[in-house]
Amino acid sequence: MDEILNAVLKRVRPTEAEQMRLQEVVASLLRRVEEACARLGVNAKPMLVGSAARGTWLRTERDIDIFILFPEDLPREELERTGLAVAREVAGRTGKERYAEHPYVTAKIGGFEVDLVPCYDVADARRIKSAVDRTPHHNRYIIERLTPELRDEVLLLKQFLSGIGVYGAELKVQGFSGYLSELLTLHYRSFKNIVVAASTWSPGTFIDFTNSYAPEEAKALFAGQPLIVIDPVDANRNVAAALSTQNFATFVRACQDFLRQPHMRFFFPRSLRSLSPKEIQKKIRQRGTTFICITFKSPGVVPDILYPQLRKTERALIARLFRSGFEVFRSDVWSNGRSIILLELSIAKLPDVRLHRGPPITVEVGDFIEKHLRSKSKFAGPFIDGGGRLVFEIKRELTSARQVVERALAERSAFGKHVAEAIAEGYKIYEGEEIAKLCSDAAIRKFISEYITRCLPWYR
Amino acid sequence: MDEILNAVLKRVRPTEAEQMRLQEVVASLLRRVEEACARLGVNAKPMLVGSAARGTWLRTERDIDIFILFPEDLPREELERTGLAVAREVAGRTGKERYAEHPYVTAKIGGFEVDLVPCYDVADARRIKSAVDRTPHHNRYIIERLTPELRDEVLLLKQFLSGIGVYGAELKVQGFSGYLSELLTLHYRSFKNIVVAASTWSPGTFIDFTNSYAPEEAKALFAGQPLIVIDPVDANRNVAAALSTQNFATFVRACQDFLRQPHMRFFFPRSLRSLSPKEIQKKIRQRGTTFICITFKSPGVVPDILYPQLRKTERALIARLFRSGFEVFRSDVWSNGRSIILLELSIAKLPDVRLHRGPPITVEVGDFIEKHLRSKSKFAGPFIDGGGRLVFEIKRELTSARQVVERALAERSAFGKHVAEAIAEGYKIYEGEEIAKLCSDAAIRKFISEYITRCLPWYR
Repeated sequence: MDEILNAVLKRVRPTEAEQMRLQEVVASLLRRVEEACARLGVNAKPMLVGSAARGTWLRTERDIDIFILFPEDLPREELERTGLAVAREVAGRTGKERYAEHPYVTAKIGGFEVDLVPCYDVADARRIKSAVDRTPHHNRYIIERLTPELRDEVLLLKQFLSGIGVYGAELKVQGFSGYLSELLTLHYRSFKNIVVAASTWSPGTFIDFTNSYAPEEAKALFAGQPLIVIDPVDANRNVAAALSTQNFATFVRACQDFLRQPHMRFFFPRSLRSLSPKEIQKKIRQRGTTFICITFKSPGVVPDILYPQLRKTERALIARLFRSGFEVFRSDVWSNGRSIILLELSIAKLPDVRLHRGPPITVEVGDFIEKHLRSKSKFAGPFIDGGGRLVFEIKRELTSARQVVERALAERSAFGKHVAEAIAEGYKIYEGEEIAKLCSDAAIRKFISEYITRCLPWYR
Repeated sequence: MDEILNAVLKRVRPTEAEQMRLQEVVASLLRRVEEACARLGVNAKPMLVGSAARGTWLRTERDIDIFILFPEDLPREELERTGLAVAREVAGRTGKERYAEHPYVTAKIGGFEVDLVPCYDVADARRIKSAVDRTPHHNRYIIERLTPELRDEVLLLKQFLSGIGVYGAELKVQGFSGYLSELLTLHYRSFKNIVVAASTWSPGTFIDFTNSYAPEEAKALFAGQPLIVIDPVDANRNVAAALSTQNFATFVRACQDFLRQPHMRFFFPRSLRSLSPKEIQKKIRQRGTTFICITFKSPGVVPDILYPQLRKTERALIARLFRSGFEVFRSDVWSNGRSIILLELSIAKLPDVRLHRGPPITVEVGDFIEKHLRSKSKFAGPFIDGGGRLVFEIKRELTSARQVVERALAERSAFGKHVAEAIAEGYKIYEGEEIAKLCSDAAIRKFISEYITRCLPWYR
């Protein structure tokens, strides 16, 4: 195993030259922020945060996060206005404004993705005004504790998480954040220790850096969250809150499999081959299911807002189909400029007749019988079923899953807000092998290929 | 209501002439049994039992039950041998031997269906050697208590039960026996009282002629039986044991409906019109379901043995289909010379792909992954589902309901014994509109018509 880990480190640890290059860019950025603050007469100071600040960045990570810290007493509008002015000045013309909980500026500078994020410099992390104010505290906590030896262990863990497809706390991924990786490393002291420990994790695993909770208390408080890691700078917060059960279980299985047979493919899995449109059609035919693929123009919101809405909409459609008697076999969502909700149905067509149950004998029938007896939609009944319930057999209104989906897309109830608006503007449905038509877009082709050949990366 | 009841009585009460005619035939039969006993040197005496004995026979009922009572100490083979000899002598050449729990002889005599049943003359009904020995006790109990006025009430109840389709305790019907009708009349004192009481019955209704049980005790002892009427001659027995929940609920609903709006149609429903083969095909098309009709030569056993076996086989097929992912919408069984198990499927075709779940993360995978990873039947996987379970998507072995039915008919596990033997000899499957081919047989056509247009008789 040590051989493998050394080989991995060689590939993922930035070279001296790369580190120098980063430090140059960082130094220049910090200077430019200070200069901009002086020029604009702003009382604020820059801080390098994130993996670049902690020496835990992978060679493939090209992110630099510079936070611009303002005094706590500055009014919020002032912060946003002057903060953005400073950020824009530093970013230059390539800078783009983004909105998450807060506005910030992102730019491509010196070959790096640079985020310039205004925030408050809050003394007590439990008194922050918004989530971004917590980052400087995280930064200080890790920098003070992470020794150079532990940095390598973080790199191994991050590359492992990345290789098995669960790295990143953004809501598109719902995986492990860089900060969480660093905390796990601080707690277990080595990548190997983490793998050994995690291979026996079960949902509800609990790590408390603050010693604030008894395990049972934490499990109740953070119920349903598979991994609970109490934030050392704020005991009210689970650092692993974004982690899905699916990704938690993927990590645990990966650790079990890696211990049984260590291999480079956990860190560097085979890349997925996209299928050709012909292959996609053939696979769909072989599966014998019905694909219903809903596409629409993505609403103009960041992925952290869009993905939860896409998933909410996906769940609403599945629930609606289920209530109408249709079974969704598997499903997924995807987005870039276009958004996709892909539903794969085992049952896409139901009979015209359906059962309509009346009350049990102990309940008065009221007008249940009169209402249905002469109805045109009656096939048979009333009669009594095996359980003693009065039933009619009547005509089913919607007999195909596509009809149900179209009805749901017209009503858009329980959809995500921006997704509902985007769908109202227009959508297209591709059914069955038709979805091969979407494959002229290479990114969509990749998404569909991945869906069809879905497999844990280390088994590819 | 009284007008209706009087009109019903006029139609169902045997005329003077009919009663005379019955008495003549009965007297002659009793005499012939006595003569036969004398001639064959047999120590036994005849007893008229059943509705003819109690003056509770409907004009349409043309049954005479003569029991031949033997001393208790006679060995069983002796009873069967000499009992049958006497019965055969009385029945003459038209007599036919039948076997239920016991052999007996049935014959058409003087326009009546005559059963000649040898049994033991047991002093204590709780010490009987077989079910038929109980009948003389029932007979005496009712005759001693049923006044001429009450007889009319019994006639009304029986015709009501017959009209709504729940008269007869035989296992084909699973309804109310004549004896149960008489006991209910003794208990409630009039047909009207019964209807009023039954309209508020709920499953577990309890009537104890022996005052042997507390209600809760009886409900526990006879759990699952919707109506519990403790037999006055044997407190261990529920007279309504054969009554199905379906027929119980049908009776309760009929009483509710009759009270709301009394009508002759409860006693004399419109007769069911058989559909033409063309109409049957059209209805099947309209329902959009898949009919799978299994037919085979009926095994040579009485209906009380055959019907439970047919239903057991029906349940086994439904359970097997369900386990394979197929949903049976409704089903029924039927028999005369030919037996039919009719299955109507909502879902008759499933996709080629199916989910195969592995263990949760807390359980070792063992060879689950190795076994499926290189399998030819693998479509996708392994991956982790939303619940954290390892899954493969693999090829479904049987994708059509018909394949599952054929496999089940080849294995015949959990089928009724005689039915399994009959099916082993050979069967035919008619699928979908093909079942119209069976309709050259008028009785089968009636069964299928009734199935398709199924409706409580008083709503026809």
